[in-house]
Amino acid sequence: MSDHEEASLSIRINLANGGRFGPGKAALLRAIAEAGSIRAAAQALSMSYPRALKLIEEMNADFADPLVQSSVGGSERGGSALSDTGKAVLAAYDDVCAEAGNSTGVILERLSSLQSLDQG
Amino acid sequence: MSDHEEASLSIRINLANGGRFGPGKAALLRAIAEAGSIRAAAQALSMSYPRALKLIEEMNADFADPLVQSSVGGSERGGSALSDTGKAVLAAYDDVCAEAGNSTGVILERLSSLQSLDQG
Repeated sequence: MSDHEEASLSIRINLANGGRFGPGKAALLRAIAEAGSIRAAAQALSMSYPRALKLIEEMNADFADPLVQSSVGGSERGGSALSDTGKAVLAAYDDVCAEAGNSTGVILERLSSLQSLDQG
Repeated sequence: MSDHEEASLSIRINLANGGRFGPGKAALLRAIAEAGSIRAAAQALSMSYPRALKLIEEMNADFADPLVQSSVGGSERGGSALSDTGKAVLAAYDDVCAEAGNSTGVILERLSSLQSLDQG
């Protein structure tokens, strides 16, 4: 009900084992689920393929099971898909962002009322 | 009640005007409030003085009033302090982090149960 646009949150989760999971890795998992391959996902995100592989390697090490796996089945070409763990991690991240956004709306309104209005 | 340490959140607030406020700026404001000068605050954070000035300049532009101001009063040396707006912004950020942490505890437990246990 305010006349300014909403502020938003960018959230990174710091795991107890030292692993980190934030917007970049979430976007990559989401893109892999949609595109069906790591290469296509990287392309869709304007991310280099080596960078995508590095992030996946990190994620696969941070969790007990790999988050991204080969999607065998079709014989034409080997794509990639999210494992059950990958789906669960992405869903949990989305839940964290949704809950955090919901619970902080009033505070963000208060903070937004303090911002300058002369910027693009 | 789990046997793993807690996961934690790192939160950045994206203002509607394009400004961003996250852990680094919050730490700087807190250090200025404690140390009473920008230089001492930067030193306490192992941050370069130019970097601290740049962050303050950004913050002062992102909000309607400056967040950091000269603490005149004592004649000995010019220190710095948080303005009322600076105190309000830092308090709002801390509130956002506290609320987000509280509201996502159960999800973070769920996510933590998926992490690998073989890392430092």
